[in-house]
Amino acid sequence: MIVSGSLDSVPGFHTAGTSCGIKEGGKPDLGVLLCDVPCCAAGVFTTNRVQAAPVIYSKNILSRNAHAIRGIVANSGNANACTGERGLRDAAAVAAEAERIFSLPEGSLLVMSTGVIGKPLPVEKLKAGLGRVQEQFITGSSGSFASAIMTTDTKEKSLALKFEIEGVPIKLGAAAKGAGMIHPDMATMLAFFTTDAALTPDALSVVLRQVTGRTFNRLSVDGDRSPNDSVIMLASGTGGAPLIQGPESRGFSAFYSAVLEAGSSLARMIAADGEGATKLVEIRVKGADTFDSANRVARAIANSPLVKTALYGADPNWGRIICAAGYSGAPVEPDKIDIYFGSLLAVKSGVDAGSDRLKLAGELKKNEITVTVDLNQGPHECSFWTCDFSYDYIRINADYHT
Amino acid sequence: MIVSGSLDSVPGFHTAGTSCGIKEGGKPDLGVLLCDVPCCAAGVFTTNRVQAAPVIYSKNILSRNAHAIRGIVANSGNANACTGERGLRDAAAVAAEAERIFSLPEGSLLVMSTGVIGKPLPVEKLKAGLGRVQEQFITGSSGSFASAIMTTDTKEKSLALKFEIEGVPIKLGAAAKGAGMIHPDMATMLAFFTTDAALTPDALSVVLRQVTGRTFNRLSVDGDRSPNDSVIMLASGTGGAPLIQGPESRGFSAFYSAVLEAGSSLARMIAADGEGATKLVEIRVKGADTFDSANRVARAIANSPLVKTALYGADPNWGRIICAAGYSGAPVEPDKIDIYFGSLLAVKSGVDAGSDRLKLAGELKKNEITVTVDLNQGPHECSFWTCDFSYDYIRINADYHT
Repeated sequence: MIVSGSLDSVPGFHTAGTSCGIKEGGKPDLGVLLCDVPCCAAGVFTTNRVQAAPVIYSKNILSRNAHAIRGIVANSGNANACTGERGLRDAAAVAAEAERIFSLPEGSLLVMSTGVIGKPLPVEKLKAGLGRVQEQFITGSSGSFASAIMTTDTKEKSLALKFEIEGVPIKLGAAAKGAGMIHPDMATMLAFFTTDAALTPDALSVVLRQVTGRTFNRLSVDGDRSPNDSVIMLASGTGGAPLIQGPESRGFSAFYSAVLEAGSSLARMIAADGEGATKLVEIRVKGADTFDSANRVARAIANSPLVKTALYGADPNWGRIICAAGYSGAPVEPDKIDIYFGSLLAVKSGVDAGSDRLKLAGELKKNEITVTVDLNQGPHECSFWTCDFSYDYIRINADYHT
Repeated sequence: MIVSGSLDSVPGFHTAGTSCGIKEGGKPDLGVLLCDVPCCAAGVFTTNRVQAAPVIYSKNILSRNAHAIRGIVANSGNANACTGERGLRDAAAVAAEAERIFSLPEGSLLVMSTGVIGKPLPVEKLKAGLGRVQEQFITGSSGSFASAIMTTDTKEKSLALKFEIEGVPIKLGAAAKGAGMIHPDMATMLAFFTTDAALTPDALSVVLRQVTGRTFNRLSVDGDRSPNDSVIMLASGTGGAPLIQGPESRGFSAFYSAVLEAGSSLARMIAADGEGATKLVEIRVKGADTFDSANRVARAIANSPLVKTALYGADPNWGRIICAAGYSGAPVEPDKIDIYFGSLLAVKSGVDAGSDRLKLAGELKKNEITVTVDLNQGPHECSFWTCDFSYDYIRINADYHT
């Protein structure tokens, strides 16, 4: 059951958010997540060949210390990407300073960064900010972690879940950021999960990879992909449920379902808050000959600037949708395709179904739109979440840097 | 040598353009190209699995009558795509009526359509328009073919070339349309070439495929691809130059060079007139390990909405460029990449080169921009033409249909 909350809704986890001056105007730009006990941890990272320094650093920590992670330091405003050797030294310096301040063992903290690419990380500002975070933890006046990791996001994205593993009540906390540069293969998005369930790092990895494949990898805001994308989960094991060691373990499917539900919610929040978005759009492709075909068609439609601008204008221009299906690389048969806007049939067997254009346009004026494309070739299906392309997308991105 | 002119700059070819009422407000929407003698012809068509009726019709004509083509009937305002069996009958009906009016043999005319997808072709309007075109040919008051095929184009795109084959003066005429839905694998673009050189259909096909690969397939306005894209060439053979039967024939390379020069010019015109474009952008990738890598990197950069919006804002945000190279699928090594804006070095070995930001921004304020990405991995290179992404792209596409 989804409840309001965030990463710190899970017993033993604490968060703080503050402004350390990377962003102008005192906006929050530094978030810290800590756990009272060592956690098992796993991560899924960007497939971009350009990997930001914090990604390289955190992958390395996870490869040698995945049983004893104590938390995460995350900053926005600077991605520490394309910063060479200096970037790696800077990421390590931030982690080391946080470990010193919070009296944690070396190699027990992960770091994450998001924001502008190519500028050196302002390490001194981050160190000073970490000092203030420590005071916040002491005084109990911690700010929001979810808001500290926002870039062009307009809303905080977090939630918590309550569920049971073998009769034991368990909690799951989740938070994410992401608005532009969002792509099926992840993107400038960060997502974090906390839980008091007990899982080995390997079992966590399995859950995280599968859930990412069904949620964050089916998102498209603009078709770009960033060097910083990361999905990370920390499991404290303090909840009292039996240890989950893999897909065969009792409790695995309950845990998987909870993470999938949380991931789906975050993915929808990210799409709905896409840069300049006025609408949340779900592209449902069904009737495909293979899952790969369904995935290709959904991805091509969700990435098409022409489809996205038509949806912005509430224009039932289904030609652009069928056209994107045609160039998706999947072996679609155009004269078998049916297309629905909401529950209204727009295209039957590849040609106009003769529906009332005004009714179709009315369906597209809603805040949440579902476009269903039935390929009528087989049993496979795949859904993507995306948003429309508005003037604000251009405004936000024409001069983000300065 | 490029001279002003168009398809009818070649002796024996005649063009006309008129308004037949498909578009509102009396805008030109019907163009006819005729030749006094049967021509050898070849075409390169869209790779979209959704193929418009005129594409299917014209491919069929070329497969059986490529030695005796007399001309082309082209309309804008309606793509005759996703129109099923009716669309095929309509395309054939337009061709048959034109052949009747101009007293030409059955199967001697090609048809092309561009415009809105999914609406039935208004055949009666086209038939009436063909009658008026005949009058124009008789009175010598023919309108512009190049303007009759425009959709969201803001400028006519045509030119002519004079060159020599084995000492014989030869002419080449060319015209194109295309503004949105332009993609490396062609798109809503049409291009036509006429010449009085003598080539077999097979030799023409070789030239056209190779030139398309180096020009129209290296264009990106928005990453979409249409069901209508076509590049067609008619060769009358009346110029007196020796017959070119293939790449081994004398004169082949002279002819190829001329078509390549014309195709490159048209491709640049199309990119510069991209929907909402304020800048013509050339993405030059060099130093790649293979041509395929160079092509992938150039394509990814040219298609990135984040790169295009940054260029619109004259924002030297090179992080987005290196990032697109990273997700292109090519085995790039980020710490080897150099990036230049014009001749100014922005990135050296994957990190900021420390150049003056204002100077870099100044380079991006020009109307024509060259971005050079040196992968420093090998000898291969590839260039793409694209444009920036502006508010007008959204305006044009949010409600194109109605």
